[in-house]
Amino acid sequence: MSTPVNIKDVARLAEVHPATVSRTLNPETRAMVKEETAARVVAAAEQLGYRANPLARGLRTSRSYTIGVLIPDLTNPLFPPIVRGIDDRLARDGYTSLIMSTDGDLSREAAGVASMLARRVDGLIAATAQLDDDPFLEVITRGLPLVLVNRALEDGSVAAVTVDDANGSRLAVEHILDLGHERIGYIGGPQNFSTGHRRYLGFLAAMKAAGIKQPSHRVSFARAFTESEGARSSSELIDRDPTLTALIAVNDRLAIGCYDALADRGLVCPNDVSIIGFNDMPMVDRLNPPLTTVRVPQREIGFASADLVLAQIGQESNAPRQLMLDPLLVIRSSTASPREQS
Amino acid sequence: MSTPVNIKDVARLAEVHPATVSRTLNPETRAMVKEETAARVVAAAEQLGYRANPLARGLRTSRSYTIGVLIPDLTNPLFPPIVRGIDDRLARDGYTSLIMSTDGDLSREAAGVASMLARRVDGLIAATAQLDDDPFLEVITRGLPLVLVNRALEDGSVAAVTVDDANGSRLAVEHILDLGHERIGYIGGPQNFSTGHRRYLGFLAAMKAAGIKQPSHRVSFARAFTESEGARSSSELIDRDPTLTALIAVNDRLAIGCYDALADRGLVCPNDVSIIGFNDMPMVDRLNPPLTTVRVPQREIGFASADLVLAQIGQESNAPRQLMLDPLLVIRSSTASPREQS
Repeated sequence: MSTPVNIKDVARLAEVHPATVSRTLNPETRAMVKEETAARVVAAAEQLGYRANPLARGLRTSRSYTIGVLIPDLTNPLFPPIVRGIDDRLARDGYTSLIMSTDGDLSREAAGVASMLARRVDGLIAATAQLDDDPFLEVITRGLPLVLVNRALEDGSVAAVTVDDANGSRLAVEHILDLGHERIGYIGGPQNFSTGHRRYLGFLAAMKAAGIKQPSHRVSFARAFTESEGARSSSELIDRDPTLTALIAVNDRLAIGCYDALADRGLVCPNDVSIIGFNDMPMVDRLNPPLTTVRVPQREIGFASADLVLAQIGQESNAPRQLMLDPLLVIRSSTASPREQS
Repeated sequence: MSTPVNIKDVARLAEVHPATVSRTLNPETRAMVKEETAARVVAAAEQLGYRANPLARGLRTSRSYTIGVLIPDLTNPLFPPIVRGIDDRLARDGYTSLIMSTDGDLSREAAGVASMLARRVDGLIAATAQLDDDPFLEVITRGLPLVLVNRALEDGSVAAVTVDDANGSRLAVEHILDLGHERIGYIGGPQNFSTGHRRYLGFLAAMKAAGIKQPSHRVSFARAFTESEGARSSSELIDRDPTLTALIAVNDRLAIGCYDALADRGLVCPNDVSIIGFNDMPMVDRLNPPLTTVRVPQREIGFASADLVLAQIGQESNAPRQLMLDPLLVIRSSTASPREQS
């Protein structure tokens, strides 16, 4: 049995006035407290498990201490780590997220934004990846803090956290070329999604840098980032050119679809065809064979986007507005050198 | 470009007064509107993509149209489908969820509840599975709608949505016995989690019903529901009795750990040892071999829990307070008959 710890308990243990506790635990006023005193208060608060009540603070500052988070779909394994990263960062400052899945539907996205505004969120993080910003125009016009995730506007006018997709595509291409592959199929994503678009451009650039012009019959664009579209697109590529020895997929779910297409034809990965994905989503290390992929630091992306939105709320004038995180090649067993005879 | 649709647009299209639109789209007052008129309004609202602004309604009803949702960890693949089911049901009535990951830490859980109360949530759904209700005492005392997920109090005093764990354990045991296994190892979960406890009791009951008393050296309890604990526990069992031909794990992550323990010893699943899990979490159909498991309808559990919390808010006196959903055996390739010679 435990009764909730309050500010007076913390003050008593730290031997300070309750107002000092309040000032210490409010990030906006902590600088007013002597460092040694602040350390004592923080230690006392941690020992007692005390958490500032953000809404009591909100009554004075007219803040809701709530950040709206729009994502396409929480059951897509990419998004939970991003949301978790956001929540971990927000919790440090007593903020909570209000999450909404929009299923990539523009009218649901607009409704989501309206609902967030009505709930007086202090800022918005949007990880919805379509290249259409209409739903956010009102947010931008109102001057409400907004951070885009995995998408950036060309003019840099809105804060954004992205992964270096061009670099990631280059890592994938170089790995496949280093293994000795020459006939490479590319399974692209829908081109109205910025991830799909940027990764495709990165792929073309990396091939060009290696002196290779990718023929168009070895490129297929999936209509959605799903396993079944990955299977359909890779089947199409293999039908067009049965001598392909490697498939580069623009994300892991499409790569999983490639496994299915190969199995359907009695082909073995990597003996017959190598497969490489992008994202390193949970469990792809458990596939048969474990998937070689380009890892995107999803949790760090979430953490950084929360960081940017809080910096805007705190009106930190020197806060960065565009962050680009680096991906990492993770080599597992789905890629190998092409067989000698082929 | 689209300007937000408002209630007057819907009224114009449906040829009714705006107040009729408002009454129709508010679940509490819809019964006041003639059925035919209501159908016209709903059709018009759908055609225009209009969504009621719940907070404008909240100003009149002093509701926040927000439901707090406490879960252990959003990156645990069990929870996103539950949360998605909750969100889908809440959205129908214009509610949104406020989600918090507590990492199964009681003090974070208490802080989460306090934060939810401070944000004036209209109800709370708790999918945190520990058998300790202290953090919720205040919620219960205040009479705030509360629904527990995957956990129920013995006296049924708090609304709860659970899965029939005893029945699920029976399905697993009967499948393994039907295949002809006699030396069966059981990897249980921490017994202070109700899921771990109920499934273990169900396992013992099902074995007893088949006339088998499970010897204690063939039972090992994991300290957490993780892959590494599954590997440790199953290694322990195999060390104690290398003649085991089947492992029943209380959840899929522990079952995945069994795969690792077998691989470490050069044993093959299912030829040497069959493995069965529980939950059917995403991607276990992609393991090598695909995992036989007992499927828990996570999304339906989320949907039902939101249903119960809304029924309490709406003071529906005949709303069910305890729902138990049925699990389903999903047979894949990780289970087979024991080899003749063993």
